[in-house]
Amino acid sequence: MATLKVPDTAPSPTQDSEKLKKAFHGLGTDEKAIIWILGHRNASQRKKIRYTYQELYNESLIDRLKSELSGDFKKAVILWTMDPPERDAKMANKALQSKDKGIDHLKVIIEIACTTSPHHLMAVREAYCSMYDCSLEEDIACRVTPPLRQLLVGLVSSYRYDKEVVDEIVAKSEAAKLRDAIERKQLDDDDVVWILCTRNVFQLRATFECYRQIYGNPIDQDIKCCGTGNLESVLQMVIWCIDSPEKYFSKVLRASVVGLGTEEDSLTRAIVTRAEVDLMKIKEEYFNMHKTSLDDAIVGDTSGDYKDFLTTLLGTRL
Amino acid sequence: MATLKVPDTAPSPTQDSEKLKKAFHGLGTDEKAIIWILGHRNASQRKKIRYTYQELYNESLIDRLKSELSGDFKKAVILWTMDPPERDAKMANKALQSKDKGIDHLKVIIEIACTTSPHHLMAVREAYCSMYDCSLEEDIACRVTPPLRQLLVGLVSSYRYDKEVVDEIVAKSEAAKLRDAIERKQLDDDDVVWILCTRNVFQLRATFECYRQIYGNPIDQDIKCCGTGNLESVLQMVIWCIDSPEKYFSKVLRASVVGLGTEEDSLTRAIVTRAEVDLMKIKEEYFNMHKTSLDDAIVGDTSGDYKDFLTTLLGTRL
Repeated sequence: MATLKVPDTAPSPTQDSEKLKKAFHGLGTDEKAIIWILGHRNASQRKKIRYTYQELYNESLIDRLKSELSGDFKKAVILWTMDPPERDAKMANKALQSKDKGIDHLKVIIEIACTTSPHHLMAVREAYCSMYDCSLEEDIACRVTPPLRQLLVGLVSSYRYDKEVVDEIVAKSEAAKLRDAIERKQLDDDDVVWILCTRNVFQLRATFECYRQIYGNPIDQDIKCCGTGNLESVLQMVIWCIDSPEKYFSKVLRASVVGLGTEEDSLTRAIVTRAEVDLMKIKEEYFNMHKTSLDDAIVGDTSGDYKDFLTTLLGTRL
Repeated sequence: MATLKVPDTAPSPTQDSEKLKKAFHGLGTDEKAIIWILGHRNASQRKKIRYTYQELYNESLIDRLKSELSGDFKKAVILWTMDPPERDAKMANKALQSKDKGIDHLKVIIEIACTTSPHHLMAVREAYCSMYDCSLEEDIACRVTPPLRQLLVGLVSSYRYDKEVVDEIVAKSEAAKLRDAIERKQLDDDDVVWILCTRNVFQLRATFECYRQIYGNPIDQDIKCCGTGNLESVLQMVIWCIDSPEKYFSKVLRASVVGLGTEEDSLTRAIVTRAEVDLMKIKEEYFNMHKTSLDDAIVGDTSGDYKDFLTTLLGTRL
């Protein structure tokens, strides 16, 4: 359930390109027009606009947006205007350049690997090869050290079966395998990796549920008890992403707006990548979890064109 | 360099379908006509024929071939007529059903993973999901035990960068990593797996060459010295497939025709899967290695329609 609102009869890509060109023209940029046009077009329409704009004006729309806009608004509009697989490949590549010792920068890779469709993940890998002259898994293997390496390479390399086929016997036997690894505190166990990296998400949800019923606690909670290392944190994140992308993203959004200051990068990423996927469900989940609306939280925490753009993608601002 | 010979102006799929229908008609089947038509059409033409035949006669061409033909000839024609990704998915699935304790049945999976293009491998994974309601890597993970599991799942999950980009410094450093694992006789080392499963084939060939120059022996030979287990055998096969698919397949073909009796399954697989890819180079390699022609060996070892079909794909019989 997307939040993106697209007009029933959208203007042609040529009309949109002409209006965008006009918005760039002169001294000031007409940000309102940019939000109005791009914030109400789906991925396929934006693709046509990028193509038509290039044909008409012999310049890249993305490059022009880069030179016209600034700050968080610019980042959000650029990510939104890019082809989704290229956008994700770019975010993954940027994450892999990080010198950060923690795992925060790896979030985006886990999100791409565990919350998007097998087909989309494959398109991201194709885009990555075209854009960076090497494969995504190759870069992960070089830049992430064990024990995270095997898990992350496995996750991005997955091409999960995408229909709801669940085997309860498998769920029980694999819940036991996961339990065994948790009890031995050997979370880098080969069984953990292959179960999480090859099973379809419906099967995995059944396995997690089976685990909870048999062993009493949610599996992510038992993993947390194994330690406070990077592997534990990554595994929890993987389980959240697979178990319920809506809950996971409402947590990401909550973390990005609570407290002093806003984590704009996480906020932008969550809104931009999910607006056409499941942002409506994420909003519902957010409300259930926090008894306050995501829209209000974002309106309270952001301002200006950035706020207007995000609320447009959230479907609250027409 | 393919051996398949396709006429400059092939008949239309409708004409081909009509001729095939006629070949099935009556008491005896006209095998010569089947060989003449299907043995001179490329994958895209065969796809159109399958589609057109189904439309015209409301029956599957593959099913009809199954009921009309027999023996090794039947197996070869069916594999040839199938869509290549579906054919490979089927062969991989059959291999995974094997109760064999050895690794001979895994050959086909290694071939698909290491000697075909990243794009083809991806198409095989897609086909596998459609045909068997689970992913290829999921079936491998369930049916192959460690230490082979991690390697095979990694190989089939790869989406290697496919252009000739080689970094000599990486080649040297990864040759040293492989050497280290060989010296410690720890071939299931994580480094071995990720190097073989993520690097592009051109980079890997440079790494193998670097290994030979620095440490004196070809890497496959040093791996052989580590032991006679399944992992050693699989790793050698992987290295042969990556290093030179032509040499690898000329070995497979040699093994299938020498000695008493013929291994028809290997022979059929090698000819059918490579006729449109590099069978010409395999023939040259075969001649260089054995000073005798592959065509002669096959003609001497097979007979009847099966022989006629294989030699048609080999481009020696018009």
